Amino acid sequence: MSSVTKNVEFSEAPNPATLIGAEREAAVFNPETMNYFLEGSKEKSEEVKKFIQQMERDPILAASPKVYDLTKEEQRELTAQKINRVSRYIEVESFDELERRLSLISVFDPQLHTRIGVHLGLFLSCVRGNGSFEQLNYWALTKEAAYVKNIYGCFAMTEIAHGSNVAGLETTATFNEENDEFVINTPHIGATKWWIGGAAHSATHAAVYARLIVHGKDYGVKTFVVPLRDSNHDLMPGVSVGDIGAKMGRDGIDNGWIQFSGVRIPRFFMLQKFTKVTAEGKVTLPPNNQLSYSALLGGRVVMVKDAFRWSSRVITIALRYAVGRRQFKASKAGENDKENQLLDYPLHQRRLIPLLAMTYAFSNGSNVLQELSHKTMDELDDAVAEDDKAGIDKGIEAMKSLFVASGSLKSTCTWLTLSTIDQCRQACGGHGYSAYSGFGKIYNDWAVQCTWEGDNNILGMSIGKQLVKSISSVLRDGQNVTGILEFLTDSKKYLNRDVILQNEDMNDTRKVLHAVEVAIIRASNQALTTLDAHGEDWDFIGANLVQLSKLLAHFFLLKAFLDKVDSIEEKELVPVLDKLAQLYSATIILEEFSGIFLTYSVVSTESISILTDQHIPKLCKDLRPHVIPLTDSFQLSDMMINSSLGSYNGDIYENYFKIVKEANPPFNHKAPYSTDLEAMLNRPSQEDRQRHEYSDEAEEILSK
Amino acid sequence: MSSVTKNVEFSEAPNPATLIGAEREAAVFNPETMNYFLEGSKEKSEEVKKFIQQMERDPILAASPKVYDLTKEEQRELTAQKINRVSRYIEVESFDELERRLSLISVFDPQLHTRIGVHLGLFLSCVRGNGSFEQLNYWALTKEAAYVKNIYGCFAMTEIAHGSNVAGLETTATFNEENDEFVINTPHIGATKWWIGGAAHSATHAAVYARLIVHGKDYGVKTFVVPLRDSNHDLMPGVSVGDIGAKMGRDGIDNGWIQFSGVRIPRFFMLQKFTKVTAEGKVTLPPNNQLSYSALLGGRVVMVKDAFRWSSRVITIALRYAVGRRQFKASKAGENDKENQLLDYPLHQRRLIPLLAMTYAFSNGSNVLQELSHKTMDELDDAVAEDDKAGIDKGIEAMKSLFVASGSLKSTCTWLTLSTIDQCRQACGGHGYSAYSGFGKIYNDWAVQCTWEGDNNILGMSIGKQLVKSISSVLRDGQNVTGILEFLTDSKKYLNRDVILQNEDMNDTRKVLHAVEVAIIRASNQALTTLDAHGEDWDFIGANLVQLSKLLAHFFLLKAFLDKVDSIEEKELVPVLDKLAQLYSATIILEEFSGIFLTYSVVSTESISILTDQHIPKLCKDLRPHVIPLTDSFQLSDMMINSSLGSYNGDIYENYFKIVKEANPPFNHKAPYSTDLEAMLNRPSQEDRQRHEYSDEAEEILSK
Repeated sequence: MSSVTKNVEFSEAPNPATLIGAEREAAVFNPETMNYFLEGSKEKSEEVKKFIQQMERDPILAASPKVYDLTKEEQRELTAQKINRVSRYIEVESFDELERRLSLISVFDPQLHTRIGVHLGLFLSCVRGNGSFEQLNYWALTKEAAYVKNIYGCFAMTEIAHGSNVAGLETTATFNEENDEFVINTPHIGATKWWIGGAAHSATHAAVYARLIVHGKDYGVKTFVVPLRDSNHDLMPGVSVGDIGAKMGRDGIDNGWIQFSGVRIPRFFMLQKFTKVTAEGKVTLPPNNQLSYSALLGGRVVMVKDAFRWSSRVITIALRYAVGRRQFKASKAGENDKENQLLDYPLHQRRLIPLLAMTYAFSNGSNVLQELSHKTMDELDDAVAEDDKAGIDKGIEAMKSLFVASGSLKSTCTWLTLSTIDQCRQACGGHGYSAYSGFGKIYNDWAVQCTWEGDNNILGMSIGKQLVKSISSVLRDGQNVTGILEFLTDSKKYLNRDVILQNEDMNDTRKVLHAVEVAIIRASNQALTTLDAHGEDWDFIGANLVQLSKLLAHFFLLKAFLDKVDSIEEKELVPVLDKLAQLYSATIILEEFSGIFLTYSVVSTESISILTDQHIPKLCKDLRPHVIPLTDSFQLSDMMINSSLGSYNGDIYENYFKIVKEANPPFNHKAPYSTDLEAMLNRPSQEDRQRHEYSDEAEEILSK
Repeated sequence: MSSVTKNVEFSEAPNPATLIGAEREAAVFNPETMNYFLEGSKEKSEEVKKFIQQMERDPILAASPKVYDLTKEEQRELTAQKINRVSRYIEVESFDELERRLSLISVFDPQLHTRIGVHLGLFLSCVRGNGSFEQLNYWALTKEAAYVKNIYGCFAMTEIAHGSNVAGLETTATFNEENDEFVINTPHIGATKWWIGGAAHSATHAAVYARLIVHGKDYGVKTFVVPLRDSNHDLMPGVSVGDIGAKMGRDGIDNGWIQFSGVRIPRFFMLQKFTKVTAEGKVTLPPNNQLSYSALLGGRVVMVKDAFRWSSRVITIALRYAVGRRQFKASKAGENDKENQLLDYPLHQRRLIPLLAMTYAFSNGSNVLQELSHKTMDELDDAVAEDDKAGIDKGIEAMKSLFVASGSLKSTCTWLTLSTIDQCRQACGGHGYSAYSGFGKIYNDWAVQCTWEGDNNILGMSIGKQLVKSISSVLRDGQNVTGILEFLTDSKKYLNRDVILQNEDMNDTRKVLHAVEVAIIRASNQALTTLDAHGEDWDFIGANLVQLSKLLAHFFLLKAFLDKVDSIEEKELVPVLDKLAQLYSATIILEEFSGIFLTYSVVSTESISILTDQHIPKLCKDLRPHVIPLTDSFQLSDMMINSSLGSYNGDIYENYFKIVKEANPPFNHKAPYSTDLEAMLNRPSQEDRQRHEYSDEAEEILSK
């Protein structure tokens, strides 16, 4: 560093756009075609593009860097205007179209997504899931709630002292036979409805989860439509609401608390698809209570798609930056070489390219889950509508499988996305910390996905439990398993400790998939043994259950990935997709869960060593030239990405500087608090301010 | 869930305070005494307490939940007022006192800490590190910068296109012999000074890193004091500054950008402790350039202490919540049992108690590092002042050891703290997402610590490189190693693959410490072999180097922990401290790095299996009863913790509700945007709004 270079050369300005452009030019596949793979088909790809263009042009819906400077109050006001705008699209669109539009809105305006989602996805889903056909028809269509009109619903499930444990909720709905009414009541602070999105200022009605109490008997938690505000938006008698205020993210949502003090609603405001209460107080209970908790299922499916879209957004930013940014010289560079592109460092490749591969795995996994969900829900709805008992039973089985798939995927993919966001931010160095890079807001908005609609640990344990119960039924009761867990049926064959995946099979992703099955089988069986040893104490094996759930999610994602690659028409995409599948399975599955693969001898220590030291670096290097086309393939427009570091043109520094200057005009280089600051800096001497009372002179006088 | 309970019982309100109080009552040691261990001594413990009380009472400095609702502008104004207030303490305190005060301020007001830290810790440290004694004396004392008076300095090192690679900075300082001046210039956008804390609105002077160019020769990057604003706070000619705006966190800091366009400064504004330029343009270069980059070292040491304090804050919140909160019944609970305390679930114990143990490890690790730093810096300063060549050489060696220790600890501890914050937030479920829990702001404020003052990956690689170079010098050149890496001197003995840690030794923390040494030796040796195989390409082994740096940090932390436990006077603390050391080494070291310990046969597969399935759960269970006293031992007052969920009295729900209501008075249940919202909900029918133009009637007319 203290060496003297020859002559002064005014060095050239960096030109990241050229670097990115050159890699784009060298693409060996068409990113538009690759998008068919990601969205599931050419038709869906084109539809998505159409929606993006429409919203990009919409003066109210389009995102911009301005969002990074809005206060909570400004965010809420803007969000209200956007809800209004979306309501006009809803009036003229099919439900499928709306679903796809919302999935895109989620990427660039998650709080708007949630605000609409709470009303349509939670409030109305609750009415659909728990109400009779006539009740749904009344609230959704006659009252026009389906168009965000007259009614804006909120979902009053959680209480301040009860989140995950729905069955333990303490709000009561007591039947009053005399008036043919229910009285909704919050018995104490712990039962205060809490976190209720839209309750603080917006909601007119709430889907309230409360204990049904009839003639002194507690029938457990049921659902009720409770008006909160009248058509003048004034609070109904007995209803107290408040704003729960600032949050880590999603400040555009007015989450609130609600306390009910003897609030009276007509008996027929209870949602009674399953549980019914007659005017005389006769209670009919549902055949299977699981049916009535399905309101959260749809949300979990959506969140897996969100995981794909959000991961695609952040990995695009980080990879464009990693290609455009130079820093340090390569360790083997000559004296005259320029600084190296970040992504040419093996460590940087290893930090980011596996996350790109994982995002590709998320894409088809979320598509397959969504199809499974639509099919299952529709079939069950039909069976219930036709009162087809066999159909209902079959539907409940399918729902259980959907519960397992969506639960393991929701928890696993939301966690992975959270860490992906943070990894991508860190990979952009200091600039990742600027609000305008987008990462901060993205992280803060995303974080809640790991907690809401099923806390990831609780969900993971519950899925793991299904796995252990299923393997128990196979091994001990000789039963077969269907649905997503079907592979467990063969468990007996794989309980020994034979090595399943040899060194030379690491790139054979079908063999890796089989290795994942075997790892799940052996780890589930071990968990079952530990469970026995601890007297059926499921809590004791909690950590194991969560691990099992994660592995199951990867099984689902890898299978969906491989199936799609097998069936894809655009064969020119297969070589690079195959590499992505290899890297995903090598890093996010085999390396990440090497503890399990090693403990149960599914792979050997030597293989894991080769995997880490040779195989993964090579795959990263092979994929390195394709990262720009692979991120372009997500087809996210600059409006969707909304980042100072991630624009398509790659002109990082110019874009970034322009955004910063527009948001913070440099003419204002004196702050509002400048007077305070200047007064401090130019303050009189300490002696003066002490009125010279601490002086030798004073001492002489005062000590006399 | 559909079972009917006997009779309606208005259930009791939750009472978390009682639960926490009971565990406090049952403490087997005195938390005040335990604090001596954490702070290093009884004296330090009492001093910390005194500072906390003083700041708690200070009307300007004390933190409150209000901070979670402040806008960026409000944060900046408040921070300016706080700087002013702190400047009055600085006038009457010793440097040691100030250092301890700032370390505490960091916990409850990190942006204030940074604002003061940039001026005293970066600007003045740069002057101290690179300026002559007379230069330091002039700027710090004559001009009173040391008291935040007349001068408010910023640290203009990074540029928009250069962060970590200081040697590649492109701002120029060209000597003009005619006027005996330097001309400071920003050649292009890439060299724009960026991220400069205080530059946007506050700084009067900058310590500028720029290429020294004399008579056409480039002498590399040196440091210069450049006035930015005059005493009227108006920008100097040629100086352009702007606000870089919103950030992920720390919005109270006015980070700015600076462009210099031919800014002239007198020659003697160059800091010339080492490099000197005469009036004739004769340049004397320093004996060793490393000396002049020490401005960041002090910050790294501080950040390890920060890691301790911040981790102690979040783990206190999460553990008090985990003890006070009940959710679900235990899997083995009877029908009449209450819901279980979160921390009684083995999974929850495993999520949090290892982080508590780790925080205890951070405490003495940071104390030892701080002592090492003080000693090293003072000795080197003395040697330089006395022009003692041998002393300077010895000092440089000591600085290298300090660089290794502080670099590995800074990167490792800041990463671990970041994930600890997120783990603690997630462990508080939905309530962790409320801004008033503190986690959101804490995470956002902390995140930058992984990037600034040495990006963790860059730093990790550089420390790993020192390790590999050192082992090479031992194995290939037969040299000895001193300082923190001394244990490498014995490397030859441990290169075989003998198992070092047996099953029965897992609780013998001294043996674990030795196992860590051996793991470092074997992994460094392997990295050296890979390096050879890849033609000395250091970049190729980047990931391995970062792992080595992390292991080294844990070696340092565990050693400091064990040494302190051995020497502690309060022997009654030893049993619980011993358990904490065991759990820290079992989870954060052995389990986390099991890949390395297994690959190099330092432990056996069987041992890791026992560790995970039996040993760790048992340690968590053993420590479970002590968590409340162990968190009380941090002696963080409610002001310091500043969380709705973490107050000492444990009355979670009442505290939380009170804070929410105060910040968001429920009387305001109509939002400012209510009119918009009501207009949307009560909008006329679609037909009306379409002026009935889409009707059958219109069709009949229009189709004629």
